[in-house]
Amino acid sequence: MKPVRKRAFPVDRVRRFLEPGPVLLLCTQWKDERALMTLGWHMMLGYDLVGTYIWDANRSHALARRSRECTLNLPTAGLLDTVVGIGNCSSREVDKFERFGLDAAPSRQVAAPGVAQCHAILECTLHETRITRDYPLFVWRVAQARAAAAPKLPRTVHYRGEGRFMVSGDEVSRRRLFRPDMLEQ
Amino acid sequence: MKPVRKRAFPVDRVRRFLEPGPVLLLCTQWKDERALMTLGWHMMLGYDLVGTYIWDANRSHALARRSRECTLNLPTAGLLDTVVGIGNCSSREVDKFERFGLDAAPSRQVAAPGVAQCHAILECTLHETRITRDYPLFVWRVAQARAAAAPKLPRTVHYRGEGRFMVSGDEVSRRRLFRPDMLEQ
Repeated sequence: MKPVRKRAFPVDRVRRFLEPGPVLLLCTQWKDERALMTLGWHMMLGYDLVGTYIWDANRSHALARRSRECTLNLPTAGLLDTVVGIGNCSSREVDKFERFGLDAAPSRQVAAPGVAQCHAILECTLHETRITRDYPLFVWRVAQARAAAAPKLPRTVHYRGEGRFMVSGDEVSRRRLFRPDMLEQ
Repeated sequence: MKPVRKRAFPVDRVRRFLEPGPVLLLCTQWKDERALMTLGWHMMLGYDLVGTYIWDANRSHALARRSRECTLNLPTAGLLDTVVGIGNCSSREVDKFERFGLDAAPSRQVAAPGVAQCHAILECTLHETRITRDYPLFVWRVAQARAAAAPKLPRTVHYRGEGRFMVSGDEVSRRRLFRPDMLEQ
């Protein structure tokens, strides 16, 4: 599949992509082993902090703990079948980049590669693990981000459970209704 | 505004509404005081557990801590201007139900009312607060849920920051691609 060209994107604005709740692909690498998983449960925990829920049965959990790094990759609607396929098999058995014809884009600040076919790639380092004692919840700091210049707002996919997805729809602005001091929040 | 008729909805399926990442209205009540806020940062932490990020400067933070209860309300696109208005003022100064012409729907299991104009109302009790030491993150257990029978999948609004929203778009199913044992995850 064709890689998506990207350019640097401000870390403190990645909420534009994450806050609406799209499915992500999370890639981890530890030494010679890498894992790739479909991730539906995540949230902003600060303007450059993201929490992700990674089942401990998942190979990605172990690699995230050991490497303390990952990439978060934003797939678009055209990759939906790939997203489902990635969620349906284990990194213990296959290299998912190879199986699904994806290119591993070298990262700048972390060992884990990005998924070149995605619209945006966020390189993340583990912010802290205290929270991980109670939930398989990792808190990541986005160290660096790259995104395609166009389309400015890609069509993303949002999971509903039971094999069903919502595809992102129209954009609407309500800037005129916001108090100026609320717009940066 | 016209209230939305609802019926009981299975607690362990509320992810259908929450996982795609819509903006919610969070209502808290402590003794005679109630607060209502617009909430964009939340995630599933289990099939009946939801994490919500509530700034401590927000009146809702204090009421959530004291009452250990809340309702999570799912507004649809027709309520967008109301959602923005609720985010633009403080419950310290106004009763937001009155100001925005909303009806407080009595809850069954918690003191905080629901927002009758919303598509779904989730009554929640605080699951634990350890996590709240590090982040203003409350983990709620959904005790009871009600939702409108139609439309089955409402048009929800998803925040992008800077006064801009995405409205939920088309539904697509990929059930046929899922391994049967993956469908309940």
